[in-house]
Amino acid sequence: MNGETVSFDAENNFLVIIDQTVLPLCYEQREIDTLEGVIDAIYNLKVRGAPAIGVAAAIGIAVTANNIETRDKNEFLINVKHIASKIRDARPTAVNLSWAVFEMLRTLEENEKKPIDEIKKSLSEKAKEIHKNDIECCRKIGENGAELLKDCNAVLTHCNAGRLATVKYGTALAPIYVLNDRGKKIKVYADETRPLLQGTRLTAFELKQAGIDVTVICDNMASTVMKQKKVNAVIVGADRIAANGDTANKVGTSALAILASYYGIPFYVAAPFSTIDKNTANGDGICIEQRDENEISSLWYKQRMIPENVNAFNPAFDVTPAKLITAYITEKGVIGVDKF
Amino acid sequence: MNGETVSFDAENNFLVIIDQTVLPLCYEQREIDTLEGVIDAIYNLKVRGAPAIGVAAAIGIAVTANNIETRDKNEFLINVKHIASKIRDARPTAVNLSWAVFEMLRTLEENEKKPIDEIKKSLSEKAKEIHKNDIECCRKIGENGAELLKDCNAVLTHCNAGRLATVKYGTALAPIYVLNDRGKKIKVYADETRPLLQGTRLTAFELKQAGIDVTVICDNMASTVMKQKKVNAVIVGADRIAANGDTANKVGTSALAILASYYGIPFYVAAPFSTIDKNTANGDGICIEQRDENEISSLWYKQRMIPENVNAFNPAFDVTPAKLITAYITEKGVIGVDKF
Repeated sequence: MNGETVSFDAENNFLVIIDQTVLPLCYEQREIDTLEGVIDAIYNLKVRGAPAIGVAAAIGIAVTANNIETRDKNEFLINVKHIASKIRDARPTAVNLSWAVFEMLRTLEENEKKPIDEIKKSLSEKAKEIHKNDIECCRKIGENGAELLKDCNAVLTHCNAGRLATVKYGTALAPIYVLNDRGKKIKVYADETRPLLQGTRLTAFELKQAGIDVTVICDNMASTVMKQKKVNAVIVGADRIAANGDTANKVGTSALAILASYYGIPFYVAAPFSTIDKNTANGDGICIEQRDENEISSLWYKQRMIPENVNAFNPAFDVTPAKLITAYITEKGVIGVDKF
Repeated sequence: MNGETVSFDAENNFLVIIDQTVLPLCYEQREIDTLEGVIDAIYNLKVRGAPAIGVAAAIGIAVTANNIETRDKNEFLINVKHIASKIRDARPTAVNLSWAVFEMLRTLEENEKKPIDEIKKSLSEKAKEIHKNDIECCRKIGENGAELLKDCNAVLTHCNAGRLATVKYGTALAPIYVLNDRGKKIKVYADETRPLLQGTRLTAFELKQAGIDVTVICDNMASTVMKQKKVNAVIVGADRIAANGDTANKVGTSALAILASYYGIPFYVAAPFSTIDKNTANGDGICIEQRDENEISSLWYKQRMIPENVNAFNPAFDVTPAKLITAYITEKGVIGVDKF
């Protein structure tokens, strides 16, 4: 895999992403420079994974702000705020999206007295900083997690919290990459992750590219994998972590945590500190995105598999209670809720 | 839905089945009168569901025995035993298959002194009896379960243990049908049941046909459905129940039992007594069928979704420990292991 998942082509003023909806069949980059393009990329999961969405939003705001042609400062500021608000609303659950938008709006506010061109430059600089920090942050998550997992032979993961979910290293998979760099091989069981198959399409793809042993299972086979002691730990990413440690992540994560607890296997959440939302007291306050039933009934099957007039229920995320989470692997260390 | 899932066209000497691999897109019956046809139908899941497989095996043996042309008694007996053994080996996990084959072989033995034509007649009569008993047995399971579930508003089920898994009424869904006949509507959440989508294709199909409210979910959404108290009970079928109550059923069942226990929701197994295998002390002794990786990697997607050279792990069943099963709904009543 060449290139970063999300990057800023500052010279040509493009948000550049790897289109994750066509992987693993096609590897295609998209160059985006419109508000509609940014929203489409985020809503339709061309870029997905909480940290990657945050970085894409920041770069998306910078790029579209650069394209605003007015010389009227007030109109410019209103336009940028409008863009930021539209991008923030593209998906509701991942806090990194609203965090990145908030950071960009703060930069806007701090520089609003300057000429328009300088404000644009500040926004671009901030986007580059968020992009760079994501790389460093994920690398540190990888190093901290590597220490924790160094005696593991195999882990189970859900959805994709790898390099395709961030700029470069991933969160849940970062420790696996760091250990791989050090010559320690850890086998990964990847839940296929219905309905959108991020495990099958993305996790298996990027691990295979890195030469890491990966086996795909259906989500309902995790209990068998744990019972047969095929894995020593479960490690997942996070879309939003409430102040009390309750964690929203791809639907199915809470089931894995309950199973891991039943089988006595440690359950780790790997995420940057920016995923912790101190404004949300606990999991009940996290908005769970409901997505189109078509994702379940026909998307990958090419034809409708559910009989006519039968409904599907399609929550994109669920909340894992903090009490089921053994530890949080962050850029600041492997910590408990007391260190938030 | 017209006709029974499995039936015996005695006049024309055919095993007749509804082909479940093409549902819900097509509704097609298959007439089978060869050993290869019976094995293909069972192995390739044209007929599936433990009780239906047992009935299909019994009728399959009768039909193929009727087609044996030799007048040499010894050759005839050897041929029938060969047929029975091949059919029994088509799938390893469901005990109903080996139970039905055993019943047919016992009939063969009891009648082996008679002329060939009378032996054939005895085998056909036995197959008709097994077919008829399945209908009566499932009806009783339905009545016993209806009493238990009469105050439920909604249940969650996995795979298909409805009329398509038996001759007529189903096991896990039989109580829902009986209550529906009595004017009591129970909503059903159906796990889609990867990899072969029996929930999406079969459970949703037959419930919709019967006018029962059904919503399909991905298997990994069961935790959310339970947490949100959308269901009052979980009810599943069984492929083999060990003497201590450990229950093999479609992969993913054990996860539902663990989740139900966590959320304090009763977990019921509905099955005929013939599913209890007293020769198997506990779940460790149950052989779990491993199926082709292609079922996960590409079957319904029409194209391979897993990157090249990435493996999938595809156990078809798992074992739910008896301690997680609230009760067994059988034709003899709603019982605990002590009544086995």
